[in-house]
Amino acid sequence: MKIWPQTCSDALHEECGIFAIYGHKEAAALTALGLHALQHRGQEATGIVTLDHRRFHQYRNQGRVADNFSDENVIAKLIGTAAIGHNRYATTGESSLRNVQPLFAEFSNDTAADGTPQGAAIAHNGNLTNFAELHRQLQNNGALFHSTSDTEIILHLMALSRAQGMVARLSDALHQIEGAWSLVMLSEQGLIGVRDPHGIRPLILGRLEDAWILASESCALDIVGGKFVREIEAGEMVVINQDGVTAQRVLPSESPRFCIFEKVYFARPDSMMGQGAHRDSAYQSRKRIGHELAREAWIDADCVIPVPDSGVPAALGYAEQSGIKFELGIIRNHYVGRTFIEPTDGIRHLGVRLKHNANPDVIQGKRVILVDDSIVRGTTMTKIVEMVRNAGAKSVHLRIASPAILHPCFYGVDTPNKNGLLAARYDLNLAEMAKFLTCDSLAYISITGLHQAVGEARDASGHIMPNGGYCDACFTGKYPHLEQRGRGHSERVPRPDATPVVLAGQQ
Amino acid sequence: MKIWPQTCSDALHEECGIFAIYGHKEAAALTALGLHALQHRGQEATGIVTLDHRRFHQYRNQGRVADNFSDENVIAKLIGTAAIGHNRYATTGESSLRNVQPLFAEFSNDTAADGTPQGAAIAHNGNLTNFAELHRQLQNNGALFHSTSDTEIILHLMALSRAQGMVARLSDALHQIEGAWSLVMLSEQGLIGVRDPHGIRPLILGRLEDAWILASESCALDIVGGKFVREIEAGEMVVINQDGVTAQRVLPSESPRFCIFEKVYFARPDSMMGQGAHRDSAYQSRKRIGHELAREAWIDADCVIPVPDSGVPAALGYAEQSGIKFELGIIRNHYVGRTFIEPTDGIRHLGVRLKHNANPDVIQGKRVILVDDSIVRGTTMTKIVEMVRNAGAKSVHLRIASPAILHPCFYGVDTPNKNGLLAARYDLNLAEMAKFLTCDSLAYISITGLHQAVGEARDASGHIMPNGGYCDACFTGKYPHLEQRGRGHSERVPRPDATPVVLAGQQ
Amino acid sequence: MKIWPQTCSDALHEECGIFAIYGHKEAAALTALGLHALQHRGQEATGIVTLDHRRFHQYRNQGRVADNFSDENVIAKLIGTAAIGHNRYATTGESSLRNVQPLFAEFSNDTAADGTPQGAAIAHNGNLTNFAELHRQLQNNGALFHSTSDTEIILHLMALSRAQGMVARLSDALHQIEGAWSLVMLSEQGLIGVRDPHGIRPLILGRLEDAWILASESCALDIVGGKFVREIEAGEMVVINQDGVTAQRVLPSESPRFCIFEKVYFARPDSMMGQGAHRDSAYQSRKRIGHELAREAWIDADCVIPVPDSGVPAALGYAEQSGIKFELGIIRNHYVGRTFIEPTDGIRHLGVRLKHNANPDVIQGKRVILVDDSIVRGTTMTKIVEMVRNAGAKSVHLRIASPAILHPCFYGVDTPNKNGLLAARYDLNLAEMAKFLTCDSLAYISITGLHQAVGEARDASGHIMPNGGYCDACFTGKYPHLEQRGRGHSERVPRPDATPVVLAGQQ
Amino acid sequence: MKIWPQTCSDALHEECGIFAIYGHKEAAALTALGLHALQHRGQEATGIVTLDHRRFHQYRNQGRVADNFSDENVIAKLIGTAAIGHNRYATTGESSLRNVQPLFAEFSNDTAADGTPQGAAIAHNGNLTNFAELHRQLQNNGALFHSTSDTEIILHLMALSRAQGMVARLSDALHQIEGAWSLVMLSEQGLIGVRDPHGIRPLILGRLEDAWILASESCALDIVGGKFVREIEAGEMVVINQDGVTAQRVLPSESPRFCIFEKVYFARPDSMMGQGAHRDSAYQSRKRIGHELAREAWIDADCVIPVPDSGVPAALGYAEQSGIKFELGIIRNHYVGRTFIEPTDGIRHLGVRLKHNANPDVIQGKRVILVDDSIVRGTTMTKIVEMVRNAGAKSVHLRIASPAILHPCFYGVDTPNKNGLLAARYDLNLAEMAKFLTCDSLAYISITGLHQAVGEARDASGHIMPNGGYCDACFTGKYPHLEQRGRGHSERVPRPDATPVVLAGQQ
Repeated sequence: MKIWPQTCSDALHEECGIFAIYGHKEAAALTALGLHALQHRGQEATGIVTLDHRRFHQYRNQGRVADNFSDENVIAKLIGTAAIGHNRYATTGESSLRNVQPLFAEFSNDTAADGTPQGAAIAHNGNLTNFAELHRQLQNNGALFHSTSDTEIILHLMALSRAQGMVARLSDALHQIEGAWSLVMLSEQGLIGVRDPHGIRPLILGRLEDAWILASESCALDIVGGKFVREIEAGEMVVINQDGVTAQRVLPSESPRFCIFEKVYFARPDSMMGQGAHRDSAYQSRKRIGHELAREAWIDADCVIPVPDSGVPAALGYAEQSGIKFELGIIRNHYVGRTFIEPTDGIRHLGVRLKHNANPDVIQGKRVILVDDSIVRGTTMTKIVEMVRNAGAKSVHLRIASPAILHPCFYGVDTPNKNGLLAARYDLNLAEMAKFLTCDSLAYISITGLHQAVGEARDASGHIMPNGGYCDACFTGKYPHLEQRGRGHSERVPRPDATPVVLAGQQ
Repeated sequence: MKIWPQTCSDALHEECGIFAIYGHKEAAALTALGLHALQHRGQEATGIVTLDHRRFHQYRNQGRVADNFSDENVIAKLIGTAAIGHNRYATTGESSLRNVQPLFAEFSNDTAADGTPQGAAIAHNGNLTNFAELHRQLQNNGALFHSTSDTEIILHLMALSRAQGMVARLSDALHQIEGAWSLVMLSEQGLIGVRDPHGIRPLILGRLEDAWILASESCALDIVGGKFVREIEAGEMVVINQDGVTAQRVLPSESPRFCIFEKVYFARPDSMMGQGAHRDSAYQSRKRIGHELAREAWIDADCVIPVPDSGVPAALGYAEQSGIKFELGIIRNHYVGRTFIEPTDGIRHLGVRLKHNANPDVIQGKRVILVDDSIVRGTTMTKIVEMVRNAGAKSVHLRIASPAILHPCFYGVDTPNKNGLLAARYDLNLAEMAKFLTCDSLAYISITGLHQAVGEARDASGHIMPNGGYCDACFTGKYPHLEQRGRGHSERVPRPDATPVVLAGQQ
Repeated sequence: MKIWPQTCSDALHEECGIFAIYGHKEAAALTALGLHALQHRGQEATGIVTLDHRRFHQYRNQGRVADNFSDENVIAKLIGTAAIGHNRYATTGESSLRNVQPLFAEFSNDTAADGTPQGAAIAHNGNLTNFAELHRQLQNNGALFHSTSDTEIILHLMALSRAQGMVARLSDALHQIEGAWSLVMLSEQGLIGVRDPHGIRPLILGRLEDAWILASESCALDIVGGKFVREIEAGEMVVINQDGVTAQRVLPSESPRFCIFEKVYFARPDSMMGQGAHRDSAYQSRKRIGHELAREAWIDADCVIPVPDSGVPAALGYAEQSGIKFELGIIRNHYVGRTFIEPTDGIRHLGVRLKHNANPDVIQGKRVILVDDSIVRGTTMTKIVEMVRNAGAKSVHLRIASPAILHPCFYGVDTPNKNGLLAARYDLNLAEMAKFLTCDSLAYISITGLHQAVGEARDASGHIMPNGGYCDACFTGKYPHLEQRGRGHSERVPRPDATPVVLAGQQ
Repeated sequence: MKIWPQTCSDALHEECGIFAIYGHKEAAALTALGLHALQHRGQEATGIVTLDHRRFHQYRNQGRVADNFSDENVIAKLIGTAAIGHNRYATTGESSLRNVQPLFAEFSNDTAADGTPQGAAIAHNGNLTNFAELHRQLQNNGALFHSTSDTEIILHLMALSRAQGMVARLSDALHQIEGAWSLVMLSEQGLIGVRDPHGIRPLILGRLEDAWILASESCALDIVGGKFVREIEAGEMVVINQDGVTAQRVLPSESPRFCIFEKVYFARPDSMMGQGAHRDSAYQSRKRIGHELAREAWIDADCVIPVPDSGVPAALGYAEQSGIKFELGIIRNHYVGRTFIEPTDGIRHLGVRLKHNANPDVIQGKRVILVDDSIVRGTTMTKIVEMVRNAGAKSVHLRIASPAILHPCFYGVDTPNKNGLLAARYDLNLAEMAKFLTCDSLAYISITGLHQAVGEARDASGHIMPNGGYCDACFTGKYPHLEQRGRGHSERVPRPDATPVVLAGQQ
């Protein structure tokens, strides 16, 4: 018998979703709903910390939001009018309970007027590029680590800060970290939201009656009936307390570089992104990518078939632009578990079949244009192409709604290293790649086309921002933090590969 | 705080999915996969019984297939080369573990050559219309009941039979029951599959190498790489053992009446149904319903939006036929749990929002044609229409891919009684119904149109079968078992409403 | 690695404890306490059924009372003013959840004035000697069995009865069963308690304020602060309802034969047994056995050491009578689990050591009299003798506070068959037995001595009852039910050894 | 309904038991057995860490040893030939999983030859008297705490040490801590065992074939078949590695002060303590206390009854010396859970009855001498006296096998503060105390008598050590660490009473 990891698909994974609310007497229940709407950003673990006067309450556990917060007793214990919550995608093999967010710490060298120590809870989406460096420095100074999360690094830096007050301590810490983060912090000083100098990961401000909300995406506002106020800006910190919201720029100004993959794949289709006239849904962006793809890489065929669900909007766009019929030729099974047992005899491509099945009577004898959002390793795509071909397709033309992924992401997306990336392995030789994928033709959207389709950001004076305001390092290798350092394109992998003394096992 | 039952949506629910295999050394693992593919037919509980020589092994539990059978140890204990499995949809409030199938019994008045008693395990999809009558009779004769399932009725009837052998006993029992069923039975005599005289619920025969498979739908063959052989016929029993498959007609011949709702909604889109040239996928049938609906009930609008996922194929068909743009204007959240906590303040239409969210930027200012497969109570649809309207729709035109549901189903589909059915409550007054649903126009497909779209069955001599070969009692009130009885259309509710002495609590 | 079954010691095991209460608004909580006091009678599973007007509520589960009923929510759901509860000792290998008591059934052929069917819950201590016969008959008549318990036999017999009312049905059933039982039944007609014609297993009546209690032992009255009223007599049935307690003799009068092993070992030391002047605690009986043993089998030695805890009272008695010093030379570890991992290298006598350890400094150089209540297989005793010898004992003299066990019990005590019984295997050759046990001398109390020590029962006219009023079949082979049948001493094993069609696995 | 905390009895609680083994291929299984034998020293949580070359493996959880380590899979994952394990008694209300030992840390400023960071796991029995001081200092320096355990303090001190190697780091840390500890540490440098300068808590060295063992008590050697080698001396550190055992004195020499309560109550009766001719079992010591108590506080009575199990050996001694009959007049129920539901009506003294029941027929009409090891708050004892009196005792004379407890323990025993201690509250007014306890007479053994009974330690030259070599601060207020500081008897409570910012809830 063989265990088949059902969820470990060959896709990119966002690491986190965050939601926070200040000033609502049902803070915990609303946070649970917000996290539920953000479930696509991380399904491995979830947690909420609430603050009731000076007392923090927490619940953190593995599993999904609906499995953890549908228990009345759990919500009832999370008292308080302010809350922060987190969904987490766990990278394989990690003892994950230790790393579940939000984390909490208290700092006795910083006491309130009455002498009680101050505390703070933090939840965070992103990745520190100088994690290894800071970890080593802190450990050399005698810090004990209890997790392997970025969040604990930030707490250690706050603990070592000589500043008074949580805002000042956090600000101290933020000046020492590098990379991508959107972060919420809850303390007696209020709720804080902050984005890294490039604003790589998303964070928006919303309102629900008198309460304020911070969230990764607008779909989390919709579920609780909240209104969108604005995006938190790159390098901006907002402090929310009884006096309302005050904003400040705490980090050096850098040109914004919003993760373009949020537009391509991560964000839920109904989440709105961008400013002003350029603000639209991920669904519309993806349909426009489909339009552009049809213009750039048209081919005559009988139908356009998406790999569901990720390829659907772009396929609709491709079909619309090309006039070729859209068909749901692949059906997705949404009932997934963590693993599945594979019969020893094996079933050809069981892994793909647990989630997808071809619909022969729309494929049989047809020339098929197959559309997906991206190709990472290519192994799953090969199996899908073969499944479509076995269902009777006369030809299979692959059209990809993003440029080829050539570089790993250091900003919070779980990508394989270069050897694992199909396009990098084949040095972007499309003919060889098509052979590997067993498709009849293969085309990616161009970087220019993608920028055009998703819309380029403009500064206050109306000029298009550098790189259109996007981080597209996974396609181009232009890493914002390295440009910032002025050190060029060296691809230093920021996490140590091996830590020989490892504590394995259950928490 | 209020608990929101997240899964209890306002849709019809099939009660069961079944899968059985004979002659494969990994019978249990394959059955688990087959049940996974049939998960849409019942998510509340699941079970597998295997037979290893004379020894039966079972695992039955609440929850989904992937949550129960992804454990290597569970599968490893289910030894044997034959297996039957079952997915169950549990009607609300029931202590469900007692009713989880397959059930097993042994009959010591029927012994093997060596004097050991015979045993049989049964899994069943459907509903007995004479359940209450048989239950009373059996209890009056001193039978002790341990569940409230149809399956136990059948076992009691088998236990009381004076016939020898499991096939003869089952045949005895089948002559006493009335209603709809597709049933698989596993015993030392082999694997048996049988459908009721009208063939209301589906059951197909498939092949995987040397093994034989019985399953509710063809998508369960696809996942294990099996081949479709044929549908089991109405009133037919097949006996599968070491000598192969033998078929016999055990029940009086009636005209076939296949549940038309399998075509409309229950079957997975990629499942193939029908015979010969008329065999096609549920997806194609539904698209054709959409075509027909566009012909019958065209209206000028800016976009066609499905209620996902059930309305998608018909909406694609409607868009294709009408030339109006198809848009994913409602996004579905697939991460569902059993319940969710609702803040006491309430969030307008939280129940709908847990699963659906409108995508404002494709709806804003548009005349929307909203397509769904059916309307049951109408409460959810009202909220969806309102959600679409709140997202800025100029007008909302509802187009339903089935005729109005006016009558409860007695054949295994969980329908409200007539007072609960919107169309019955309003006596099919479309204007009033549209007012209730807050839509600008409302149209259902006609019964004739539906029959045309899904294709009418023909007998051996090529004549269209009575009623096109379908049971459409939920639309027409023409109940096959009452027609058979020749007693007209009286809608006797077959289950007793109240059993005052009730055993509550945990199993 | 090897799994060591920590609880499977070489002792006899009572199968059950029962507790019932009628007329108290906290019936469930009190029943849980009563069962806790009776925990020594069965630790494998426990259950409570309450009756609230016409509605039964149940909780049954594996594990101990304190592990199951310390949850406020569990107790809160068991509403009603009457309750019956059960502790169960599970014989090895059985899928035990199916057999956990109390069981419940409803009988629709017996309806209340308003037409609702009658129901009853039963808990039972004992064993039916005609189980196999009844099981076969019932199954031949078409009964379906869901457990392998005696209790279900009784329910089937009640279901088949043509009598009206639960009392009459139970009475019908009791006339068909044979063996030993103490049984409580809860229905709308009230709470019923009944003992078999010989009164083999115990059952007492008690009072707590206005409520009535039935329990296996008096220690269960003590914990709830109840008062002892009297023992239920052999063959007597008491019916407790709003009108109080009414007694009737429902079964043919037989001479009482109370299980003498209750006195020797099963009953908790603080439980009182017997009538009038002869009523005393198990502790006192056991001390008197020790006195008698010292008179019958004195030997010069330095100390008397019990095998704890079972041998302590008899050892105290032996020491008191003989004037030899009592010492706790063996210490018992009360923290037991179900199993323990044994290192592959093995530790000599690990199984014994998990529970017992010798205290060398009271044993070193001493002549030791080792006292235990009984010897079953003798394997554990051999290891204990060796452990004592390794701790430095100069000699080890074994004194056993019961006669040699030569015959299996058919009345609810889990005994090995004759081949498993040390004394039977050696045909009571004490010299050979001592050699096997590696002790320097070995003596059992005589049957006459035991009768004397525990006190012989007298009838109303003051005559000593036949056999002193005890069942001592395990020592003498005089089985009451066989004497009753007048069929002599044939040792028909009442349970079928093999049922080839078996349903294995999880419930 | 009220929840009754069943285990929270009115007794003193040792905080920990430790076991460690070096050089055995089944280190984890043997450690589990050793911890099982030490279960009486802490039942709330347990953990094992093993070392396999450079890789640590851990399992820590709430609950007992047998409940956690009877799973083959758990043991199988704890690979390695060295292990340390810990049993923990959790003080009420604490989120205990965070505090479960052993703890582990790695120190990257101290790297092996190949540059990999060093790590160490620690388990610890005792209490740091300067915990609060060190905690504040460390937190002021920016340390983040993840538990409230002494063990983490030690790890932080080790992390801050500039020394190289685990032994040197530990030595650095030990020079900064104050109080009582017996500690084992596992690292690549080997297994280390160390006791505080006064040797307050026990730690012994044993041998099993080629492997070395460190354990709290000798009963843990017995269960694995190990041999006692010697006690670790006060202030001594032993380092066990491939080269064997090397001992060194790492801490300033102080006069040994072994916890006298280990003799009176904590140690298992079969555990041997002391050196040379003075080495004997706790059982013998306790019997001698009983002898002495009978000499000091004889009274004429009919029987001597222990409060089981703690009072049994002293009661046996008292009976032996006085010639008054020993009787088990109180029976203990060993089946305990964490809590129990109390009926709202209440049952008089339910808390006591969950564990104890009087045996009326040995008490009725008797003058009873009741013996227990100690009195803490006195509340439970009052209820036991009343229970004995209700069972018919003519008089109840309380004899206590330890002097009156007047002072809290700061060395790892969970004692109430002075207001909670009966003797302190009544300022040792025995007449008033007897009135509170409702007994007819009350006597404690004298301090001199106790010293005599348990045996006074002698130094190398044969002189009796100061205070007999014991810490008896709970009786006398002579705290070794304060004497050492030369600061007299001020009873500084070493733990902060209130930490207003508290993180509540689940880990």
